[in-house]
Amino acid sequence: MPRRGLVLVVSAPSGAGKTTLCRHLLQEVRDITFSVSCTTRPPRPGERDGVDYYFVSPEEFQQMIARGEFLEWAQVHGNFYGTPKRQVLESLKQGRDILLDIDVQGAAQVQEVLGQDAVLVFVLPPSLEELERRLRKRNTEDELTIRRRLDQAQGEIAQAPKFDYLVLNDKFKEALQELKSILFAERQRTFRRQDLLAKFS
Amino acid sequence: MPRRGLVLVVSAPSGAGKTTLCRHLLQEVRDITFSVSCTTRPPRPGERDGVDYYFVSPEEFQQMIARGEFLEWAQVHGNFYGTPKRQVLESLKQGRDILLDIDVQGAAQVQEVLGQDAVLVFVLPPSLEELERRLRKRNTEDELTIRRRLDQAQGEIAQAPKFDYLVLNDKFKEALQELKSILFAERQRTFRRQDLLAKFS
Repeated sequence: MPRRGLVLVVSAPSGAGKTTLCRHLLQEVRDITFSVSCTTRPPRPGERDGVDYYFVSPEEFQQMIARGEFLEWAQVHGNFYGTPKRQVLESLKQGRDILLDIDVQGAAQVQEVLGQDAVLVFVLPPSLEELERRLRKRNTEDELTIRRRLDQAQGEIAQAPKFDYLVLNDKFKEALQELKSILFAERQRTFRRQDLLAKFS
Repeated sequence: MPRRGLVLVVSAPSGAGKTTLCRHLLQEVRDITFSVSCTTRPPRPGERDGVDYYFVSPEEFQQMIARGEFLEWAQVHGNFYGTPKRQVLESLKQGRDILLDIDVQGAAQVQEVLGQDAVLVFVLPPSLEELERRLRKRNTEDELTIRRRLDQAQGEIAQAPKFDYLVLNDKFKEALQELKSILFAERQRTFRRQDLLAKFS
């Protein structure tokens, strides 16, 4: 009997640094797989199809919705994002962990579908001022987009109380350590480790 | 506003290695204090009064029960053990964490009193055979005591499903790392980190 797998869901306002945190988590921790999302937004410089996202057309995305292929999907900043269902459910069944880097709306949907198999982490920026500074430094968005992301950030942070864990991304190393600890701890949850008790019964 | 403190409760059958795990946790992690228990059992070689336990007489112990001074108490292997209430409650109030190295009965009582402020970890030995080997190696107990402890161990392991987390103490370093991760993760629980959200409201 393997231990029960888990779905680590990481959400954050744009610019809080969740994608960098997730990338480092995947590099440093074995036995967790990244769930590649589908999106209709254009690739940013350096992003690769099938690695960072599956880049699909709005038409393809609508077809996937119609076929019930998404665990969750959402429209964010005018673009569609969705998590293909199959990989996630198969990983869980095999006792493997999977990482979802998704938005706040999507996280709520995943928790609704997966219940205690989902572990929800919200990454907070040090402050709204710092978030703005990071968005400007990224230099890929125009002024209107930045304003829109900052407004949205406040709305997203208002949803943070629904998450299981908060990680403040002020000092990156500490934030990464906290994220790793959450994963390692959740792997030891009693309901996931019936394999350990089976030896004594 | 400080973050909310937590009470890390570590229980295990005798010989599973919880006391050594707890000692290393206290050495390696800052900002967690050991709750010194009271006991009526005689000190083992090297144990110091007020550090490992408060060694008290059966009469003193009964008086403390009568005065309501224990968060939990239990009789184990014919001796009494109890956790003084005051230090634990004051630590929680000040947002500090406290470590309780107590038996299975006591852990259940603490969870009843403290609810979500208590985090319960059960340390498992690799097997009952290995537990017996460790008890014999300790060389401080007679044959009857060892038999009694092994019988009791099976009863205690049957209570493990009530705990929040399981840690298998097979490879010591891994077990310690898991215990540390549980503490670090639980510190980031959303309901304990209202201090982080306060900055954004």
